[in-house]
Amino acid sequence: MNTGKVTLVSAGPGDLDLLTFRAAKAIAAGDVLLIDDLVNDDIATLKAAHARVVRVGKRGGCKSTPQAFIQRLMRRYALQGKHVVRIKGGDALLFGRAGEEIADLRHAGIEVEIVNGISSGFAAAAGLGVSLTHRDHCQGVIFVTAHLRDGTEPDWATLAATGMTLAIYMGASRIDSISEALGKTLAAGTPAAVVQWAGTSREKRLVATLGDIAACAAAHDIASPAVILIGGAMGEAMEAVSARSEPAMRRLSA
Amino acid sequence: MNTGKVTLVSAGPGDLDLLTFRAAKAIAAGDVLLIDDLVNDDIATLKAAHARVVRVGKRGGCKSTPQAFIQRLMRRYALQGKHVVRIKGGDALLFGRAGEEIADLRHAGIEVEIVNGISSGFAAAAGLGVSLTHRDHCQGVIFVTAHLRDGTEPDWATLAATGMTLAIYMGASRIDSISEALGKTLAAGTPAAVVQWAGTSREKRLVATLGDIAACAAAHDIASPAVILIGGAMGEAMEAVSARSEPAMRRLSA
Repeated sequence: MNTGKVTLVSAGPGDLDLLTFRAAKAIAAGDVLLIDDLVNDDIATLKAAHARVVRVGKRGGCKSTPQAFIQRLMRRYALQGKHVVRIKGGDALLFGRAGEEIADLRHAGIEVEIVNGISSGFAAAAGLGVSLTHRDHCQGVIFVTAHLRDGTEPDWATLAATGMTLAIYMGASRIDSISEALGKTLAAGTPAAVVQWAGTSREKRLVATLGDIAACAAAHDIASPAVILIGGAMGEAMEAVSARSEPAMRRLSA
Repeated sequence: MNTGKVTLVSAGPGDLDLLTFRAAKAIAAGDVLLIDDLVNDDIATLKAAHARVVRVGKRGGCKSTPQAFIQRLMRRYALQGKHVVRIKGGDALLFGRAGEEIADLRHAGIEVEIVNGISSGFAAAAGLGVSLTHRDHCQGVIFVTAHLRDGTEPDWATLAATGMTLAIYMGASRIDSISEALGKTLAAGTPAAVVQWAGTSREKRLVATLGDIAACAAAHDIASPAVILIGGAMGEAMEAVSARSEPAMRRLSA
């Protein structure tokens, strides 16, 4: 029996029309789909009739499938000759442990292909109607996870010192400590935004300043999954917000 | 006459199947398409029969359409009631002056919608078969342009100090000075890669170390457009490369 293969497919932020054509084709070609739980449920409608679906959610704090078990499943199906399609939210190459999965599969001699997708930080910026890197404000953008494996936090002072837009993933539950830490380097008036469920029909956007973003997020019940965006470039979103007057985007304090 | 609108569509890195469904729908809905020159020529096959195509390339050093003229064209068509689709390579919200275009259009009272796409840094990582943020190596990734508006370079020491993967855009022509500058903070053995024409059929990948990446790129005639990737996470690409033995990915020096 020939060894199968694994395709890591990036499902994008949620709405199915933010999938790429290549992702949809890969999903249709799979024998077994392993689907993460931040992925739109409707994605299974794109599968082949014979394909089997296994949901392998891993949300922090909730009931979850351990990473080692997911990797074992992928190896097992691939070694049975199946084409395994592992579907991850956003872009599989930004956070989400694809690095470990790729290394594990290669170690087992299993071919891995990767299909890119739209990461939620990009979808958040699109919702806010801003560039992540408006050149009046910065030279780039940093995508960073607030959730480090050893329980510590990133070195916010060093990140703030770069002057770049910060796109902080998995930070909604500790937005108060993050904004406080960044406030030691950045001015309280630095533009800030938080977007929950970016790129889905449930998207909630909030624009404020570094000084009041935590209070605003709490007042509007903005929780995980959300992306926090900090930096001068987000100041363009503030204008956009007031121009469009969307209720969820009003600032609590002027 | 009603005012039209502008949709900024991200065309992704090149291959048409890396477009999102939403992008393809937006292109089909446009009356006028303004197409950047790093975008796949075949994208015009997705347009409506009546739609007009204007190519507005702006490659560094070559004949080009000035930014102000592009913005004037967009405003003019939109104010004539047309649906203008502005097509940019990669993701429109990462570099590429979308920030200025959005501000200009809003100032003129023109509605702007944004459709995300795959940026070339993500496509480069997919080609290399690595995560941008393998958690054994880093907490995130920095997307930075080497081409600053005032002719200076980013503060490489500060960026290197973050310990994150660096994805450097528009840096191929000065890869020697960039790698030298980063070498003051990072070890010469730090994994490094450069991917030209990422996400297209012409893709060329090269994996080396920070110390020899510039010489390798020169020896293999790797030039713009290319993404340079630096950091421990790229070490996983080195393994991938030697395992796959693709000629363009061999290192010149061991």
